[in-house]
Order: sequence, then C-alpha cells, then structure tokens
Amino acid sequence: MTLAERVLDGDIRAAARLMRDIDDRFKSAIEELKTLYPHTGNAYIIGITGPPGAGKSTLVDQIVSAYRKKDLLVGVVAIDPTSPFSGGAILGDRIRMNRHADDAGVFIRSLATRGALGGLSRSTTDVVNVMDAMGMDVVVIETVGVGQDEVDIVSTAHTTVVVMVPGLGDDIQAIKAGILEIGDVFVVNKADREGADRTARELTTMLEMKHPDPAGWAPRVLQTEGARGVGIDALVEEFDAHHVYLKESGALQRLIEERNVKLFTDTLREELFETVFGAIKSNGQYQEILAGMRDKSTDPYSAVQKVMAGRAFS
Amino acid sequence: MTLAERVLDGDIRAAARLMRDIDDRFKSAIEELKTLYPHTGNAYIIGITGPPGAGKSTLVDQIVSAYRKKDLLVGVVAIDPTSPFSGGAILGDRIRMNRHADDAGVFIRSLATRGALGGLSRSTTDVVNVMDAMGMDVVVIETVGVGQDEVDIVSTAHTTVVVMVPGLGDDIQAIKAGILEIGDVFVVNKADREGADRTARELTTMLEMKHPDPAGWAPRVLQTEGARGVGIDALVEEFDAHHVYLKESGALQRLIEERNVKLFTDTLREELFETVFGAIKSNGQYQEILAGMRDKSTDPYSAVQKVMAGRAFS
Repeated sequence: MTLAERVLDGDIRAAARLMRDIDDRFKSAIEELKTLYPHTGNAYIIGITGPPGAGKSTLVDQIVSAYRKKDLLVGVVAIDPTSPFSGGAILGDRIRMNRHADDAGVFIRSLATRGALGGLSRSTTDVVNVMDAMGMDVVVIETVGVGQDEVDIVSTAHTTVVVMVPGLGDDIQAIKAGILEIGDVFVVNKADREGADRTARELTTMLEMKHPDPAGWAPRVLQTEGARGVGIDALVEEFDAHHVYLKESGALQRLIEERNVKLFTDTLREELFETVFGAIKSNGQYQEILAGMRDKSTDPYSAVQKVMAGRAFS
Repeated sequence: MTLAERVLDGDIRAAARLMRDIDDRFKSAIEELKTLYPHTGNAYIIGITGPPGAGKSTLVDQIVSAYRKKDLLVGVVAIDPTSPFSGGAILGDRIRMNRHADDAGVFIRSLATRGALGGLSRSTTDVVNVMDAMGMDVVVIETVGVGQDEVDIVSTAHTTVVVMVPGLGDDIQAIKAGILEIGDVFVVNKADREGADRTARELTTMLEMKHPDPAGWAPRVLQTEGARGVGIDALVEEFDAHHVYLKESGALQRLIEERNVKLFTDTLREELFETVFGAIKSNGQYQEILAGMRDKSTDPYSAVQKVMAGRAFS
C-alpha cells in the first residue's frame, strides 16, 4: 500500500510520515497528495488568528474538546513563527498532546517552515488536505502572530476567527482596523478582565460601520474565558451558523475554489524557484553570480535578468 | 535626467516616485535600481520588531530624533500588515509625518504589499537600497507584528532590535524563546510599568543560557520609556557599539553579502512566477486549469506539473 492509501485507511502513522515528507519537500509527497486530492473537500476548516497574549492556544484546546463531545474528528495545524529558531513548535506539540494525548480522534501538527516565504502557506494547505482526506470533520488552523503570512493563511479557512483581548495597548487600534476585513467571527477572550465589555463594544461599533456583506453574513463579537471554558458552546454554535450560511449562500464552493487557486499559485511559485535555483547551482551560474556580486561586477537585479534571459518560459 | 540620477542628486520627489514604481512592480523600476546599486552599501540599517502593543512606533520616533540631533540623515521603512485591508499604512504615515514633517533630513515610507508572499521582503530591500543610495546615513526598518515575514525582514538588517514590554501574557514566553536568536539588542519598553525589571531579568537570563557568539557580541537588555524619551541615548550608544563591532569583526561585510543573496533569490522567485503566470494567462492554459480544477478533472499539483513540463529551465 502507498502512503496515501494508508492515510485514506485512517493510518495515523502514515499521515504523520507524509506530513514530514511535505515538510522536507520530498518529491514523492506530491504524488501522494495527488492521490489524496479527490478525497478532500469534506472537512470544515476554521482559521484562528490574533495578537500574542490573546490566549489562542487555550481557546483552541477548548474548541477541540467541544467538537470531541459531538463525536467529531478534529485536526489542528498550529503555525508557529518561533520555531524556525528554537524548535518551539515541537515543545508546543508536547504541551498540547498532554491534554489530548489519549484521544485518537484528535490529530495535532505544528508547522514551521524555515525561511521559505510562501512555503509556509503551501505546507499548511498540504497538511490541511491530508487531515481532510484522512477523515477529519473539522480542521483548526491556529497562527501565533499577526503578520502578513499568518493573515494570508487563516484567510484560506472557511471561517476566520479573530481573537482579541482587553487592554493590549496602542498598536491594537491599528490592528483592529486591519483585521476587521478578514474576520467572520470575533472573540474577546479573557472576558473576565477589566475592559472586556468596552473592547467588545468598540469592535461591534467598528463592524457596524463596515460595508455590509451583500450575501448577508454579519460578523458578531463573542466573549469567552478560554481558561475556564466559558462561552465556548456559544462560540461553536456561531461556527455552525457560519458553516450553514456558507453552504446555503454558495460561498463555501467559492472558498474551496479560491483555496485551490492559491494552492496552485503557491506550488507553482515554489516549484519554479526550486527548479531554476537547482539548475543554476549545478551548472555553476550561481557561483559566478555570487563572485560577481562580491567583486561588484554585477548586482542582484542584473543577475536575475541574466538567469531569466537564457530560458524559455512561454 | 533619469529617476535614478535625480535620486542620487538627493531629489526627494524622485525617490518617492521610484518607491511607488517599486510598489507597482513597474519593469522600469528595475533599471533604476540597477543604476542606484553601486551607490548602496553605505547606510547603517537597523531592524526593529516585537509584538503589537510594545510601543515600537513611539520608540522609532525617538530614535529618529536622536540621530537627527547628531545631524545624520534618517530613513524609516514601516512594514504594516494592517494596510492590505484598510489603508492603515497611509494613516500611519500621516501620524508620523506630523512629527518630522518639516524636517528634510527624515524620509519615511510605509510598505504594505498586498498578498504577494516574498514580495514584501523584496520591496523592503529595494526601498532600503533607494534610501541608502540617496544618502541616508541610517535606515530604520520597523515591522508591526511578529510573523514569519516580519522576522525574515528585520533579520536582513545590520542590527536587529527586539522590543518587549512588561506583562503581555502567556504567548510571550514562547515568542521570547523564538526571538532570542535574531536580536542583537533587546529593549524592554514602557519600563515604568510594573514588572519591567522582572521581564528584563528574565530576558537577560535566557540570553546568558544561549550559546555564545564566537565572534564576541553579547546582546544586552536595555530599558526605555519611549513616550518620555527615557533611555534613548543609551540605546543609540548600544547601536553604535554594535555597528563598530560589525565593522571590526568583518561581520558587516558578511551581512551585506547575505542581503544581496536574499535580494537575488527573492527577485528571482518573483520574476519567475510573474513571467510564467503571465505566459499561461495569455495562452489560455490558466483558464483551462481553472476549469479543470472546478470539474475535478485535474488537481493543483498535477496542474503545476503540466505547466512545468512544457518549459526549459536548465
């Protein structure tokens, strides 16, 4: 049996192995992903983002428990910007695994693709597709941080959840303005803290000023206390309501198509670069370019033009 | 006179125009950048990152003022993840401009390249190069957010500054672990707040446990109050010390080479993608792929393989 066939059979170890191959960019992984592809499109994908300190991990743990109570299979992909430097993702896995360790209905995977811009986005989609194909009913993508990459990644989810927290200071106003556009559901977590009501009211006012979605979804602001599990059931009900709305309005089909287009362009970008970069490394052109930039006989822009010039792209 | 010649002549309007062309990915901008390239490599580049709410913008304003007191020309590139959605960068510009508006020795530019992964990194380097060529002595790159892109971008600076703040909650421990590796200087801002000493002590302890830099730079933790300008002079002295260290140890030359290599690979990645994506759009292959993904006769992975197959890359 191929790895993909074993994944379709529900083999957790095969899935873990394939995800490692995806991380390592093994060419064989692409063939496995092609086999899995017709079996994707069934999972409901939730993306969760928000600034550091908002308590997203605790909230995700509670959401996982809530879906498990409904007997649904849950996958979690945690995007961790710290781990390129310190292996933080692995540590994060262990902490989470403690809680859901004995539960075969939960599959958790941390992702931290070092350096490769665009690679993180592609790897995330690949890993979500593996979880989808292996039969996870719900996949939660959680990002630490609120950078361009992270916003980009959670935007590919079916339901995008923005987690805020009372009293995070100056920059928050600016960030709020930015994330208003991407959120389908807003959460003020740590709602027992001073200022939670005010933060929720401010967010609600800002959302009301926004141009309304013509298809009819009006994002609401919910309050939770992740640490004590307060407000989680209402949050999961809101997810269900958004999922139903997506299906009935036809927006879900459009989102699935957009995810495919993004996977295509991300993969094309990376394959093109890896192929050409590999070629100029083996034929010595890259070494020449490095020497040329060092002695200033060339510059990065001219070097790119020279690499492009010798090749047939159309 | 070409735009590049006018930039070299110190023409602010020409520089602003060229930066817009860079943002818009005009082909002509590459030619101007090639002309400017031999005039780069003189500016001292400082990258500043840290979580939202750390007061980075206020700190940057103070750093700008400190360098202006020394009669140095200062450029600021603000990377703003919010603006792809709401035009926040423009607002940010205005707020800043108020303070340094009448000062011809300060050039401020906000950057927010929508969507294009990798594009942000490339645009930042291009804009820094324009500021460098036009004679800015110091260029400060400031990022809002702590995502993969942002960390990547500030890592290309000569001196990377990580700004923390007391009491930001759970996720901070993880983020600290991640950013220890990239910081040359650490700042605990809002040092009048409760817990500042403890945060500084914790950071110092973590830094001491780190594998020491064989070349001899030991990052220190400084405390500042951006709003009142406390600790800024000591901070700028620390920058000077790091700059001297970089020059004397030969590390500066290595950093300059690494920036060039990164600019080359970022530019190559984008040019390859834009060229091939443009080609398959004009010859109808892209439209076929979209239809194929929609009726499930193809998948994103196979579609990429088909695009790659018809082209000569080596």
